[in-house]
Order: sequence, then structure tokens, then C-alpha cells
Amino acid sequence: MHDSHTAPHHLEFMREAIALARANAAAGGRPFGAVLVCDGRVVARAVNRILETHDPTAHAELLAIREAAQALGATRLDGCTIYASGHPCPMCLAAMHLCGVAGAYYAYSNEDGEPFGLSTAGVYAQMALPPAQQRLPLMRLLPDGEAGLYAQWAQRA
Amino acid sequence: MHDSHTAPHHLEFMREAIALARANAAAGGRPFGAVLVCDGRVVARAVNRILETHDPTAHAELLAIREAAQALGATRLDGCTIYASGHPCPMCLAAMHLCGVAGAYYAYSNEDGEPFGLSTAGVYAQMALPPAQQRLPLMRLLPDGEAGLYAQWAQRA
Repeated sequence: MHDSHTAPHHLEFMREAIALARANAAAGGRPFGAVLVCDGRVVARAVNRILETHDPTAHAELLAIREAAQALGATRLDGCTIYASGHPCPMCLAAMHLCGVAGAYYAYSNEDGEPFGLSTAGVYAQMALPPAQQRLPLMRLLPDGEAGLYAQWAQRA
Repeated sequence: MHDSHTAPHHLEFMREAIALARANAAAGGRPFGAVLVCDGRVVARAVNRILETHDPTAHAELLAIREAAQALGATRLDGCTIYASGHPCPMCLAAMHLCGVAGAYYAYSNEDGEPFGLSTAGVYAQMALPPAQQRLPLMRLLPDGEAGLYAQWAQRA
């Protein structure tokens, strides 16, 4: 993504992500679109599908990652770049980290989204707190006699 | 989840999540399972399906959220609790925040997973850095003439 040879395409990819967002909004969906690019080529395009699928994880970036992985037949997307119309939420940013996405661009910031209820800055703020102070308590609970799961898995043939 | 009346069930729900993880590992998958509970009732059970689906987002917790939302016909899971065999990664934790999950329990920690390559502590560490210092650069790019998307969406009928 730092290759000056491909830099001129950045704006085209972002315009496509925004066009997807506009089309989704016009169709009654939420105004988010994403384009996933590997080796200078678009391998996945997606829009937010929460309203039509009732799936709260159906963000454009997450769906683009899933679609790209299917298209490439790989669970790793090392070196790929995502162009998202809106600032990625922490779920989507973490998904990018997990599968090796190299970088991401966004057009609309969380500040842009705030007046319209389209910011995820609050979730970032929650996750920046120590676990015990987050609104969502994350607690350890290991029942007796349940140790050894990972070691057993590691010994698989 | 702080209701002492339901507390005795915590261990049962966790044992079920771990049993799912063990069964998935025995079937050749990764050793992760999750159970999603609403109003004291299991509404979704899921395992890590990355290896069979090639979907890098197919973590047990994320799939449990998707399945629960489908089962309940709702994009919000306010007040529900997740029992995960392993410490949730930041993608799954953010997904829980986004849809209103009230709390989560895990049996195996990231420290338990570290020797087996099953920790996501590194992704948490990355996301705790200022955006400019993360391995995955997140950059703003708003092409000329593309302003106004959110305001147009907000004016929808």
C-alpha cells in the first residue's frame, strides 16, 4: 500500500467504497461500503447488511473479509488493503489484524458519524479501559476437571 | 448475570462451551466453543469453523452472536451472556459490545493459549497502540466531491 505505483488507484478504490455505501443507503440499508484490494485488484466488495440479515456482525468490512477469503480460498489476507467508506469499528479493525490485512483507508470519520449515531468511538473507548472497568465484564471461570484442552489439541496427529 | 438465582448455572454453561471445544478439536477443528445465554436459556451454540469454512472471522463467539440474532430475530442481544472456552479476541469482544451482550465468561486465558499459538494478546496489544503506531495503518482518505453521505442517509424517509 506504500507502493507509489499503485497510489493513484487509492482514490478510485475509495470512490467505489463510497458508491457502494450510497447505493446501500438508497436501498434502505445503512450507509457503509467497503472494497478489499489484493495486489492492486479488487477481490471483494461489500455493504452493511445488518438491516436485511438481522446479523449484528454484518458490517461492510467484515463481509468483505469473509468474501475475499472465500474468493481466494485462504484464511490469510496478508498484504491486502481495505477501503471503507466509514471509520472501521473495533470488531472490523481486529478482524483485519487477525487475517493480516496490511492497511486500511476510510473516508468518513467517527466525528463525522457522531451527529447521526454512526460513530463507534464509544466502543473504542470501552475497549481501551481495563477489562474490569468495561461496561461488559469479562471474567474467568474454569470448572474443575476441565484443564488440558489446549495441550490435547496440540497433540493432534 | 449478577443474579444469584442463575449463578449455579454458570458452571454448566461453561462446561457445555468446553465440551463443544473438545468435540470440535476431536473433529479436526480449532479448540474453541461458545454458548450464548439469554434469560437463563441457551439460544445459540457455536464452535470455531475457520478451518472448514476458510472464513477468518468464523470464531465461536462471533458465530454464536450471529446464530442467536437469527434465532431471536433481533440485531440486539442486550442482557445476554456469552460463555466461551477461550479468552475472546478483540473482534469478538467488540462484537459483544456492539450488540449489547452484558457480560462474558472464559475458561482458558491468553496465557494458557500462548504456548500453543492460541493467544490473541498480540492483537489486543496492537489495538492498544495509537492508530499511527499500529502495524496496520488506518488512514483517512476523503476524495473531492464525496461529502454529505451521512447527512443524506439521515434524511431518508
